[in-house]
Amino acid sequence: MIKVSLNGYGTIGKRVANAIILQPDMELVGIAKTSPNYEALVAQKLGYRIFVPENSVKSFEESGIKIAGTIEDMIKESDIVVDTTPNGVGAKYKETYQKFSKKAIFQGGEKANVAEVSFSALCNYDEAINKQYIRVVSCNTTALLRTICTINSVSKIEKVRATIVRRAADPKEVKKGPINSLVADPVSVPSHHAKDVNTVLKDLDIVSMAVIAPTTLMHVHLLNITLKTAVSREDVISKILETPRLVLVRGKSEITSTAEIIEVARDLGKLRNDIPEVVIFEDSIYTKGNELFLMYAVHQESIVVPENIDAIRASMNLASKNESIRITNATLNIKGGYLI
Amino acid sequence: MIKVSLNGYGTIGKRVANAIILQPDMELVGIAKTSPNYEALVAQKLGYRIFVPENSVKSFEESGIKIAGTIEDMIKESDIVVDTTPNGVGAKYKETYQKFSKKAIFQGGEKANVAEVSFSALCNYDEAINKQYIRVVSCNTTALLRTICTINSVSKIEKVRATIVRRAADPKEVKKGPINSLVADPVSVPSHHAKDVNTVLKDLDIVSMAVIAPTTLMHVHLLNITLKTAVSREDVISKILETPRLVLVRGKSEITSTAEIIEVARDLGKLRNDIPEVVIFEDSIYTKGNELFLMYAVHQESIVVPENIDAIRASMNLASKNESIRITNATLNIKGGYLI
Repeated sequence: MIKVSLNGYGTIGKRVANAIILQPDMELVGIAKTSPNYEALVAQKLGYRIFVPENSVKSFEESGIKIAGTIEDMIKESDIVVDTTPNGVGAKYKETYQKFSKKAIFQGGEKANVAEVSFSALCNYDEAINKQYIRVVSCNTTALLRTICTINSVSKIEKVRATIVRRAADPKEVKKGPINSLVADPVSVPSHHAKDVNTVLKDLDIVSMAVIAPTTLMHVHLLNITLKTAVSREDVISKILETPRLVLVRGKSEITSTAEIIEVARDLGKLRNDIPEVVIFEDSIYTKGNELFLMYAVHQESIVVPENIDAIRASMNLASKNESIRITNATLNIKGGYLI
Repeated sequence: MIKVSLNGYGTIGKRVANAIILQPDMELVGIAKTSPNYEALVAQKLGYRIFVPENSVKSFEESGIKIAGTIEDMIKESDIVVDTTPNGVGAKYKETYQKFSKKAIFQGGEKANVAEVSFSALCNYDEAINKQYIRVVSCNTTALLRTICTINSVSKIEKVRATIVRRAADPKEVKKGPINSLVADPVSVPSHHAKDVNTVLKDLDIVSMAVIAPTTLMHVHLLNITLKTAVSREDVISKILETPRLVLVRGKSEITSTAEIIEVARDLGKLRNDIPEVVIFEDSIYTKGNELFLMYAVHQESIVVPENIDAIRASMNLASKNESIRITNATLNIKGGYLI
């Protein structure tokens, strides 16, 4: 059993913690938290061992939260650390992981050079095997890569032109906006998403543009992919249907929005209404000559969770690509095929 | 003086009414309204003559709103009617305009076959000269056409791939949503916007995809245009700067959102914060080989107002294209160049 700890317990950290507990080859050492807020109280209620920075020991004790030790104690107990600290903080913690010679998985909010390899399970699992430091790319990049690598196996991709409509904030983020504006973010073209895709697929011709919209549920991507040879709509649909972590919204279901997708996740009893699959609108799949168009939704809170689990297995060389993806999908109930 | 009446006094109608009063060659007969709501009360306060359907006479009288006659009375007094009734209603009123042999300008919510020609002042003014029935295309299509016809004069366009992020509702529409969702609208590709562009530019290769976002201020378009020959970013910027009805948001202004654009319109004292120009983010203009990328914002409530005025002049053959655009821009204070 590989001992995994979680440094950071926010949107991604708490989901990865749940996922680690479900893996047959991993055990959760504990989680690290810097402030004794409501999420720390919930973690305690869930029975997690909580580790804190030395200078937070007193504030946690005053809050009545029992701590298991310092973050350094947690790291020492671990074989590998999943770093889900805020953007840029992971790079600072890297020194500590190095000090104790521990492997680490970083998130997409860190710069690519924090790790030896940027990671997408479907695209480059094998490159990450035995690596000391792996960076799981961001939610938007994870969705782009899953989709691009799948389509590339139908027909070689010549170029990708992507529009990303980003959610403004996660549901819990009460201080973020906008609440009534579209924000070009960034206003310059190409957006950083294309560059981030290139950290995994180095030679891909991709340009992305991005705008933030006032919603909390999911991102939406609108892709225009030029292929070396024309493909049929049916071939694309068949390939998507046989690829786990991509699901199709059936045209007949009359689902056209992120709100309805999340409602399905709620009705199906998914934990926190998470839906880590890329959710592709079947009716949006359209071909014109060598071009393919499609639209899909991305659940920003959960999409990178399975990739974090696979990254642990790659780093520790616990399983082959297909074996790891199979175990992760089975334990997390991640589907392929139609959403409903 | 050409006598113009307005059938319909909603978002577009009330703005066209203001615009007609400012034209040196037009006079406003009056406006037609079907229900005595707050907008009718405001119209009375502004001194407009109000015409109503026969079966609404009583309800208007009970509301204390003085009426000048029926809608048929208004049409009879007019040389031309601008029809700004709700989508689809204009086609029904067409019979009445025919009955009295009156010219009419329809809006983009009507099907293209309601009129002899679909209209964009910059693209096809001359085709509309002397036409009995003209249809001004919708807000999104108007913005697409202004931009496309401008870029096409820099270098011949081979194809346009457009993403449209639509505002969910106008500020006054309190019953429309969504308030927290992205909605593929339509979920099928291409969206109707491409088809509508083709009602004016019949041979253009254009594919559009559209999503609704929960905001009321403006639409945002993200374009990828393939040109016959490569152009420089500077040539595109020069052409935009010399084209009225397109304005550039200077990179240095640090404006990146629709909210900030509208705040500029408010600070400049524009009536209702209208900004009928296509507002292009200078920093988004990007070239790669023969491709051009750009992002811009579209004020859905006001962008078609100048085109309605020009359509009247074309139908009545009052002025040449350039002369009409010049008068409309001067009277409505419509700019080119930089936003600020």
